[in-house]
Amino acid sequence: MAITTRLTAALKIKHPIICAPMAFAAGGKLAAAVSAAGGLGLIGGGYGDATWIEAELKAAGREQVGCGFITWSLAKQPQLLETVLWHRPRAIFLSFGNPAPFIPKIKAAGALAICQVQTRKDAQHAIESGADLIVAQGTEAGGHGERRGGMTLVPEVADLIAKTRPETLLCAAGGVGDGRGLAAALMLGADGVLVGSRLWATTEANVSAAMHNAALAATGDDTIRSQVMDLARKLDWPPRYTARVLKNTYIARWHGREAELMAVADQEAAKYKAAWAAGDPEGSNTFVGEVAGLINSIEPAAEIINRIIADAEFRLSRSASFVA
Amino acid sequence: MAITTRLTAALKIKHPIICAPMAFAAGGKLAAAVSAAGGLGLIGGGYGDATWIEAELKAAGREQVGCGFITWSLAKQPQLLETVLWHRPRAIFLSFGNPAPFIPKIKAAGALAICQVQTRKDAQHAIESGADLIVAQGTEAGGHGERRGGMTLVPEVADLIAKTRPETLLCAAGGVGDGRGLAAALMLGADGVLVGSRLWATTEANVSAAMHNAALAATGDDTIRSQVMDLARKLDWPPRYTARVLKNTYIARWHGREAELMAVADQEAAKYKAAWAAGDPEGSNTFVGEVAGLINSIEPAAEIINRIIADAEFRLSRSASFVA
Repeated sequence: MAITTRLTAALKIKHPIICAPMAFAAGGKLAAAVSAAGGLGLIGGGYGDATWIEAELKAAGREQVGCGFITWSLAKQPQLLETVLWHRPRAIFLSFGNPAPFIPKIKAAGALAICQVQTRKDAQHAIESGADLIVAQGTEAGGHGERRGGMTLVPEVADLIAKTRPETLLCAAGGVGDGRGLAAALMLGADGVLVGSRLWATTEANVSAAMHNAALAATGDDTIRSQVMDLARKLDWPPRYTARVLKNTYIARWHGREAELMAVADQEAAKYKAAWAAGDPEGSNTFVGEVAGLINSIEPAAEIINRIIADAEFRLSRSASFVA
Repeated sequence: MAITTRLTAALKIKHPIICAPMAFAAGGKLAAAVSAAGGLGLIGGGYGDATWIEAELKAAGREQVGCGFITWSLAKQPQLLETVLWHRPRAIFLSFGNPAPFIPKIKAAGALAICQVQTRKDAQHAIESGADLIVAQGTEAGGHGERRGGMTLVPEVADLIAKTRPETLLCAAGGVGDGRGLAAALMLGADGVLVGSRLWATTEANVSAAMHNAALAATGDDTIRSQVMDLARKLDWPPRYTARVLKNTYIARWHGREAELMAVADQEAAKYKAAWAAGDPEGSNTFVGEVAGLINSIEPAAEIINRIIADAEFRLSRSASFVA
């Protein structure tokens, strides 16, 4: 059995599941595992370390994978896009910035142009700029994002697509961790889902055991959106974006005390960097979404994907029974 | 046709739709219209004006309706619950505070005890306190609420119910405005939905034409969670709660300047009160959720409910076609 949608037909993939290009966590191993399992894997190009990205593209081997970028960061070194396109990725994923300058090059290279958005306004811009696939990311998501919830953003973007460029594909992101989330996303008008945190919690992800354990112990109440980790890492995130992480001692110390943190920035940046390198979930941050409350195991990505599909199939197959 | 779930069976209602007890907006007329259309209408008892509530219960006529309270406010005048129970309401709905002291009285009076929660932790407390029905409210919702998104809160509470007291019913709230939202909620594990903003945008709601027009002109991007309106109204809301309203001149002036607002509180409170009484969407606030972006008409509640059901039936009936 399988779930077939406009997404699986257009991308010629088995399952309507794309792995979020999570910076650091989604390397070639995870991306390849997701593609091998029938989804589409994306390497987390993040802030744009060309050496790391090329190594991870190589690590993906023969599997067709794509690469994601933080758009405002890519804009600082736009030549990196050409370097990556030279490797013939299946897709380029852009989020957090203006994708318009990059879309023509991506499409000309034969890659799929995926644009993740957090608002209706940005969805409209991405559709008008020629994106092949819009990812509507709800606030539930782990890592960077904004405040709109998926329950309204997904159908609102679906309506916009229907009205302006109906051939544009749509995926829901944020809070999708099991078959219920996939089935709900399809009901909301999406053609598939982008899964981040649930695939972060797999054996193929570049995540420390301590951070995995912190997520396993958490409920969905235990996350927060904050900017302290971006200040601590001295990253130039535009102020509209925050990152969802587990509440921990670092958050308890600095969230709401941003000015104090900036006053000791150099010292704290070094400490944060060391804690991050050690995979320390208290001295740095565990980037995971509200879906942490639905995660009870660390398994291979293929197991997770197969379970999501089987459960969604079950729910979708019997959903007509609600109709009397 | 109809959509039947554990909720429709347990409550003996035709449609799995409950109207949110929106303070001020949901009077006897709206509650009766929703019950007459096959759902369950709830009067917005809000801060607890006994005279208003009794008049609205009377205005509901022969239709079976319930009444909602802001729990921390009810706790200041607990005798009000007995006054309302004397009218034999179908249900009492409690949100924003500790429901435990009230649940035994509600059940003893033969009314359904509905508890709305915004976190897993509060869901657990409400289940353990004997609630008949949990409403899991996502951040998308209009009016008061918190930060968790519906895509994760609903399945997480569904899992909790399955594990601890499976007979407890579950509704999703926040962002449900059409058949897509209802179908998605059922896929997430809910037995039905609580609809607020979409039923606020009906001819039976106590809402000014100017506020309705402001919502019709808005997209889902145009709302914000804030506390300035509670400061302006001198209401004692616990700080964990914020209210989602349309961004407007009032928000632009005061959001983020709460200390300044408090310094001129008396004067501003009087101005706010006058603007609210006049139904002014710029001098006071339009309490509507992100679902504003899916609202394109003001119609009778029955039309809205029939359309939600027909659309959800269509989507649920054909959802098996996703499964190949």
